[in-house]
Amino acid sequence: MSIDPERIEQQVRFLGCLDQLKQVFRQNLIMDESRRENSAEHSWHIATMAMVLAEYAPQELDQLRVLKMLLLHDVIEIEAGDTFCFDVEGNKDKEEREQLAADQIFGLLPSDLGSEFRLIWDEFEAGLSVEARFANSLDRFQVLLQNLNTRGGTWRIHNIEKARVVQRMLPIKEGAPALWPLVERYLEEACAAGLLRE
Amino acid sequence: MSIDPERIEQQVRFLGCLDQLKQVFRQNLIMDESRRENSAEHSWHIATMAMVLAEYAPQELDQLRVLKMLLLHDVIEIEAGDTFCFDVEGNKDKEEREQLAADQIFGLLPSDLGSEFRLIWDEFEAGLSVEARFANSLDRFQVLLQNLNTRGGTWRIHNIEKARVVQRMLPIKEGAPALWPLVERYLEEACAAGLLRE
Repeated sequence: MSIDPERIEQQVRFLGCLDQLKQVFRQNLIMDESRRENSAEHSWHIATMAMVLAEYAPQELDQLRVLKMLLLHDVIEIEAGDTFCFDVEGNKDKEEREQLAADQIFGLLPSDLGSEFRLIWDEFEAGLSVEARFANSLDRFQVLLQNLNTRGGTWRIHNIEKARVVQRMLPIKEGAPALWPLVERYLEEACAAGLLRE
Repeated sequence: MSIDPERIEQQVRFLGCLDQLKQVFRQNLIMDESRRENSAEHSWHIATMAMVLAEYAPQELDQLRVLKMLLLHDVIEIEAGDTFCFDVEGNKDKEEREQLAADQIFGLLPSDLGSEFRLIWDEFEAGLSVEARFANSLDRFQVLLQNLNTRGGTWRIHNIEKARVVQRMLPIKEGAPALWPLVERYLEEACAAGLLRE
């Protein structure tokens, strides 16, 4: 098999571009509290989480699709940056910025691959399929674990009240309903421990 | 569906343990050369690479299995640390250290999941299946790209000669043979550019 030099060059350029996700920092901390988490290691963490928590999906689903969505869901941040979920201003033009970023980043790839990846990312964003909802639930659940393990993390730093966190976690109720009672318990315990404001 | 509290607690503890992989640093640099790469973001990078380069696998393979292997292949470093490939001393007891680490880390999980993950990790380590060989090829190819994009990276820092790098890259010849001519060309170019010693 001989490979198309132009095609592999585009693929390698895309892989080089991906490296930049290691320099996009999220608001939440890693668990030893030494620094903020970057979006590349976050993506690894939730993809692995999908393997660990697969049994809590509400029905049989396409696990490969879930992993692909989780691996790709944040790559547009290379261009658009990470937008903190409680940043009202930043969230106003988030979608527009991210759509442009998706055009640019997936546009680096050969067109067949670029379209395939864009569909995967669009599916995650739209949140309509059972796979997208489960993937999105894990994205929320991971932040919960990070905050619980960093003395309240971003909740404490930004003085967020419980009602807003519940709102933020709501997709779990539909995407991974078996986990919802656990989420409720964790949030109650976080309030009781003073990690989260009532 | 009500969930087993002991089971989910073990799963959540494992997920917390995984966070430590973000603090295991490899020898190679990220591409802006600002710091060494950690094993969590490296694992994300190669899992995504498996999506981008899937077409270069030597035959139809189980892509989900490849992704699972790549997501898990380094988690034992949480206990065993990263062993630099050209560290002769460190590689003497690498296997023993990593087997013990695997017992410990996968032992955190409920036994069915722990066994499943251990089998995936064992398969990667044994390198006998077409999936394991392809996954291993990507692990090598990613280091090649990191070094090419960091002025020789670990080759330059540790003054490694080309013959040793070729030896290190050889699994690609079997695991992703379509990529081998590209690897050879990259290494020649790296020598010509003075990034790698002949």
